[in-house]
Amino acid sequence: MITNFTYFIPTRVLFGAGQLNHLHEQQLPGKKALIVTTSGKSVKRNGTLERVEKQLEMANVEYTLFDRVHPNPTLANVMDASILGKESGCDFVIGLGGGSAMDAAKAIAFAMTNPGDLWDYSFSTTGGKKERIAQPLPIVCITTTAGTASEVDPWGVITKEETGEKSGFFSGESMYPILSIVDPDLMMTIPSQFTAYQGMDAFFHATESVINTKNHIMGEMFALKAIELVAKYLPLAVKDGSDKEARYYMAVANSLAGYYMLCTSAHSMEHSLGGFYPELPHGAGLIMIAHAYYQKFADLKVCEGQMIKIAKAMGVHNAISGQDFVNALDKLIADIGMSDLKMSDFGITKEYLKSCPERTRKVMGGDISADPAELSDMDMLEIYLQSYK
Amino acid sequence: MITNFTYFIPTRVLFGAGQLNHLHEQQLPGKKALIVTTSGKSVKRNGTLERVEKQLEMANVEYTLFDRVHPNPTLANVMDASILGKESGCDFVIGLGGGSAMDAAKAIAFAMTNPGDLWDYSFSTTGGKKERIAQPLPIVCITTTAGTASEVDPWGVITKEETGEKSGFFSGESMYPILSIVDPDLMMTIPSQFTAYQGMDAFFHATESVINTKNHIMGEMFALKAIELVAKYLPLAVKDGSDKEARYYMAVANSLAGYYMLCTSAHSMEHSLGGFYPELPHGAGLIMIAHAYYQKFADLKVCEGQMIKIAKAMGVHNAISGQDFVNALDKLIADIGMSDLKMSDFGITKEYLKSCPERTRKVMGGDISADPAELSDMDMLEIYLQSYK
Repeated sequence: MITNFTYFIPTRVLFGAGQLNHLHEQQLPGKKALIVTTSGKSVKRNGTLERVEKQLEMANVEYTLFDRVHPNPTLANVMDASILGKESGCDFVIGLGGGSAMDAAKAIAFAMTNPGDLWDYSFSTTGGKKERIAQPLPIVCITTTAGTASEVDPWGVITKEETGEKSGFFSGESMYPILSIVDPDLMMTIPSQFTAYQGMDAFFHATESVINTKNHIMGEMFALKAIELVAKYLPLAVKDGSDKEARYYMAVANSLAGYYMLCTSAHSMEHSLGGFYPELPHGAGLIMIAHAYYQKFADLKVCEGQMIKIAKAMGVHNAISGQDFVNALDKLIADIGMSDLKMSDFGITKEYLKSCPERTRKVMGGDISADPAELSDMDMLEIYLQSYK
Repeated sequence: MITNFTYFIPTRVLFGAGQLNHLHEQQLPGKKALIVTTSGKSVKRNGTLERVEKQLEMANVEYTLFDRVHPNPTLANVMDASILGKESGCDFVIGLGGGSAMDAAKAIAFAMTNPGDLWDYSFSTTGGKKERIAQPLPIVCITTTAGTASEVDPWGVITKEETGEKSGFFSGESMYPILSIVDPDLMMTIPSQFTAYQGMDAFFHATESVINTKNHIMGEMFALKAIELVAKYLPLAVKDGSDKEARYYMAVANSLAGYYMLCTSAHSMEHSLGGFYPELPHGAGLIMIAHAYYQKFADLKVCEGQMIKIAKAMGVHNAISGQDFVNALDKLIADIGMSDLKMSDFGITKEYLKSCPERTRKVMGGDISADPAELSDMDMLEIYLQSYK
């Protein structure tokens, strides 16, 4: 682990209950914001959108609202919003919501300053792979979930509906939000089921970082802390969404897991499911394949030391093998009531799974080469099929 | 610990052996650098200065050298260097060396863009407390020690010789280095004694953060990791300076301890010694007062939980009290051969110590109000006198 690495996370992050109330005191990066949020109603119903608008007014910043982002944000969403933003003269973008809204906001900030179609610049299979012409507009993220950590990374995941591609979109360090707000008060009304999905997304960001071949000491520090917090507080947050302590620690854990996110193929394998079955929540897909995925590496004994560290962070102080981590993982999934998630409930067929290894190699949600041992297409199919219920 | 906090460290840091070789590949913030280093000969003798100059040439960046910074950088150093820098047309500043060089570089970057005397802008007792007029020049830090963590913070400590004031100097976030290099290869020739002083400076940055009343979960994560690494690797680095693994982990530990440095009065108490006895290395002064300082809080039982966490990070897995930390601290100090450090060897008198509580309240190296229990002048004097040998 004596390895070289660079640390650079230029985002200013305000952590803690009530931090949204301090938005107007921040140095905002423009005069008119495009507020990007999803087509769901929660930020309207619970008053969060109104609070954000009020904060902008207090800061003398104008705004336009785009509230039609899909749960898996689409290329069409991005292009529609960027036209609206340009026509209304917005000079920065606020992503308000979960990963969908924040990922979309980043891609929209890019599309507003770069001509043509966003996909011209994508590195996905059908993407045009063009170099960007201009810096994206500045991005502010206000996260209402504890799941994707999009508030502290420069990535967005966008789906091209026509081809079923769900692809990571990245355009250098200028896509880091300049300001993010991680306020657990905004997360108190997340339904139990989604608390579980989102929390496990954060958990797997962290576990994939620890077993990653590109792991380093600082990344591991962030990831193990996130794992410790999720293992301790996610079951509490799922059981009682009004538990302010559990919500606080889950909000922090999610961002910690994002500070050095180094994903392995598990994230790509899930994107192969979610890209084609957009109703499947990302965290649910990750939970479905987790046991078989980690069991594979525990059986191969290729990352025993790292899995033992994860198990210990989860409270298994006497862990001595990778199997101890897999067992702790199974218990965590049971504790949050997710042992019975079924792919078939989301319409996924065994036949479809056969296409997934090839899809997985094409998408960029995680780094296939960063697995502790290389998985063949047959290995991946085995993991998918073992996960099928 | 459910507390609000902001995370913002905009410095790009390259960690690892050989990273200095990548300086020329970085986006440097100007066309001509003022290289600031100390009057000691080590960066010349061991070739580091020449390597830096070579890297700048490869990047087509000119440079001027100021190599007269004192071990405790003085106001006169800062003013001399800023005149040299302005006259030679430098547009950014490189701090090359330990804390002295990097702290001086920051103050010089400030003095080069703000008219008059630096002390006009100081918040020390005799300081002018003026608002700055302009942003400091951009700062690059290349640390050759594992001690002050100046490479990841926006602070400099400058001594005004006439008054014996040793004062923290800070001018907002623009004093964060934009780029820092933490390359353990540059630390291989540090003599054992200084390895110990510097390593313990880092250690105390971390312990003071953990017992600090302003502690929060993210600061604690950084600090406990630093404590774990120092406890494990400092004795090895002191014993064998050529141990590359120990040097690597000490280099990382030092920066980690700096990412969220929240100092308590211990740092101020040391500055009261070092400000008047400039031959006393900062780390040596900290080691001298450490036992009595922490014993005070262990006796008061005001931060048992935090001290237990520190003890556990130091490898005392069955720690149950603050005393366990104090015992582990004593052992660490003994393991690095520093149990017999004497104030009297540096000319400090008991009579002088009587003036120290008042001095301590005047300087800003650490936050007196952040102690886990408030120390009266008499408490401080007691700590100083118990520490006297």
